[in-house]
Amino acid sequence: MTNHDCQLTLARRMGTLPSSCVRELMRATGGRDVISFAGGLPRPDLLPLDAVRAATDRVLTREGGEALQYSSTEGEPALRSLIAERLLAPRGLRVAPEQVLVTTGSQQGLNLLGKVLLEPGARVALENPSYLAAIQAFSLYEPDYLPVAMDDDGVLPDALEQCGGTRAPNFFYAIPDFQNPTGRVYSRRRREAVVEVLARRRLPLVEDAPYSHLAYGEEPGPMLASAYPERSFVMGTVSKILAPGFRIGWVAGPARWIEQLVRAKQATDLCTGAFAQRIVAELLRELDLPAHLARLRAAYRQQCDAMLAALAAHLPGEATWTRPTGGMFVWLTLPRHLDAREVLNRTLPRGVAFAPGESFSPDGSSRHALRLNFTNATAADIERGIAILAEEVKRLL
Amino acid sequence: MTNHDCQLTLARRMGTLPSSCVRELMRATGGRDVISFAGGLPRPDLLPLDAVRAATDRVLTREGGEALQYSSTEGEPALRSLIAERLLAPRGLRVAPEQVLVTTGSQQGLNLLGKVLLEPGARVALENPSYLAAIQAFSLYEPDYLPVAMDDDGVLPDALEQCGGTRAPNFFYAIPDFQNPTGRVYSRRRREAVVEVLARRRLPLVEDAPYSHLAYGEEPGPMLASAYPERSFVMGTVSKILAPGFRIGWVAGPARWIEQLVRAKQATDLCTGAFAQRIVAELLRELDLPAHLARLRAAYRQQCDAMLAALAAHLPGEATWTRPTGGMFVWLTLPRHLDAREVLNRTLPRGVAFAPGESFSPDGSSRHALRLNFTNATAADIERGIAILAEEVKRLL
Repeated sequence: MTNHDCQLTLARRMGTLPSSCVRELMRATGGRDVISFAGGLPRPDLLPLDAVRAATDRVLTREGGEALQYSSTEGEPALRSLIAERLLAPRGLRVAPEQVLVTTGSQQGLNLLGKVLLEPGARVALENPSYLAAIQAFSLYEPDYLPVAMDDDGVLPDALEQCGGTRAPNFFYAIPDFQNPTGRVYSRRRREAVVEVLARRRLPLVEDAPYSHLAYGEEPGPMLASAYPERSFVMGTVSKILAPGFRIGWVAGPARWIEQLVRAKQATDLCTGAFAQRIVAELLRELDLPAHLARLRAAYRQQCDAMLAALAAHLPGEATWTRPTGGMFVWLTLPRHLDAREVLNRTLPRGVAFAPGESFSPDGSSRHALRLNFTNATAADIERGIAILAEEVKRLL
Repeated sequence: MTNHDCQLTLARRMGTLPSSCVRELMRATGGRDVISFAGGLPRPDLLPLDAVRAATDRVLTREGGEALQYSSTEGEPALRSLIAERLLAPRGLRVAPEQVLVTTGSQQGLNLLGKVLLEPGARVALENPSYLAAIQAFSLYEPDYLPVAMDDDGVLPDALEQCGGTRAPNFFYAIPDFQNPTGRVYSRRRREAVVEVLARRRLPLVEDAPYSHLAYGEEPGPMLASAYPERSFVMGTVSKILAPGFRIGWVAGPARWIEQLVRAKQATDLCTGAFAQRIVAELLRELDLPAHLARLRAAYRQQCDAMLAALAAHLPGEATWTRPTGGMFVWLTLPRHLDAREVLNRTLPRGVAFAPGESFSPDGSSRHALRLNFTNATAADIERGIAILAEEVKRLL
């Protein structure tokens, strides 16, 4: 096949699709020796290699060919039960296994929600800033965005109340537990206030909860959806607590809502791989999950502390940042006239990568901010990397 | 979470999405004792269990945490090379690894092609009948369909020449090697004639080739794309030759075309699982692939023969059927006044499932036909199931 390319007529949606600076970056730096604060990657040595090896062996022995066959579109029944019981119930959410759809990573959940709910002219309310890959997933369906302001306790109820005016958004997309990109966690009181607004406006909620089990101090309050189950989708993933390499996520919600996602998933990838699903089920069944999570939390808490200490030691007084008590990210805000991409252009040649803020706010209001991941690098690399970042920020000031 | 459902406003595309009767059926019959001619499932005892166990062990030992980490959106470099070298080159197609995008099953390839190329008003030319899950995947993007007539040598060049008139289709979707649902293989001469038409009309080609390595007699001619590389996407999967449970497929094509699919994939599921990709790469590297394929071919040839013999023994003179020399399916055509769904309503309670023809033709022209899979059931079950099918057909005549 030659590389002499002919013209291809692209669908309009491809024109509005933002590209992911983080993945572009990871591609650009892949393989080289870079301190990466860019992605949301777990620390490689915390991945449960031996447990995976043992689980694979048991699954192949016990389940034979079934483990390598097609799965149902909804997902393997055992995995759906385990997700409900081991991962959702502890967060205050009671769902039947039939209300859980297994997805190919939680990115697929976002994509399916877009497919089922969005079309040009639809409106998505979301925290400002919000998760860039969610914005990317929804953008394929060409909605308008309604960014809603936050403070350290979560999204502002008044702003959510007013957002969109009489033309209510199709849904509100939120990450209440250790938000991506800010690391913020909604306070208990704020959770109640937000649910009140949602219920009053009858707004569907999409609650994305990849970091719920990664609290480094106090546990977050119960999921918003637990007080608003009749109009909530809940999303999750094992990528942050077991391993990203399986691509196993889920969406839970009212059974008839989930049916629509199943229809869309059927046309999208038929089913998620039975092999990965069965191994993840075995891990959820046999791994000492509380002990494993405690190990992750202890390690990441230390790395989070290292990052907060390095920021305090090196960053100039004009910068501010969030102080997460869980999750994977710190959100750093620079003086308004700085563009984080310019900072990146200077740190990247020095071997330090991060995610510039612009793509996290559809209204462009985060150009002077940036997202820093603290779970992938060691404490020593965090100190070294933040020192370099601070030097370049100071030079630009 | 309750099952008391509130109304959800669905995007328009959900109204036009056909559901897959085969998956509905598999769900309806799942777990029960049914002779299934419905899906395209491999025979469970032919899945390479021991090779998978050994490959998994080697991958985890050698590659450690990397095997459980995020992959790049394009896919694992080693796997992309092996697909090009071990699976595409033997079919006459020379592509660089960079021209291969790893997808989450080949269904995702179809979905990404729809995302990138189709919108309401776009036109897809396709064989009549064609693969129902492709029609389903494309339908999410609301194109119009232009079904093109076939005979036993493949699609008719004259019909392809005229299809769409002056408003040429956006692409031609074809399965030249042991087509789904008919089992037909394009003759060598027909391949040349079809490429001539495509080149003259400058039509992009989407060549779907899941069954290329499953010839039970003569090998099929070189892929259409090998004579038309500048305007061709080629799709494939390991589902039919290694195992469906990995969900590993690919799309190859001109590098700049593939880039567009990568952008869409990023927003769809970020990446395909590193774990499954690395195990499949190891299988392609270490498994004696020719010997494995020879084993599959010998078994499936026997099952195909059993089905053809059973059809000849039991079906009434008014029925006709294809005589595949590869792949997984026989296409059975009943007298025009019969509806295959009525036949199914009668065979299903007797424990025999198949795929009624209607969903394989967007113009509804295949209501009196049906697709029979011969790779999943044993020869004895095939004989028994076809006898039941024939009884019910005779009753309806």
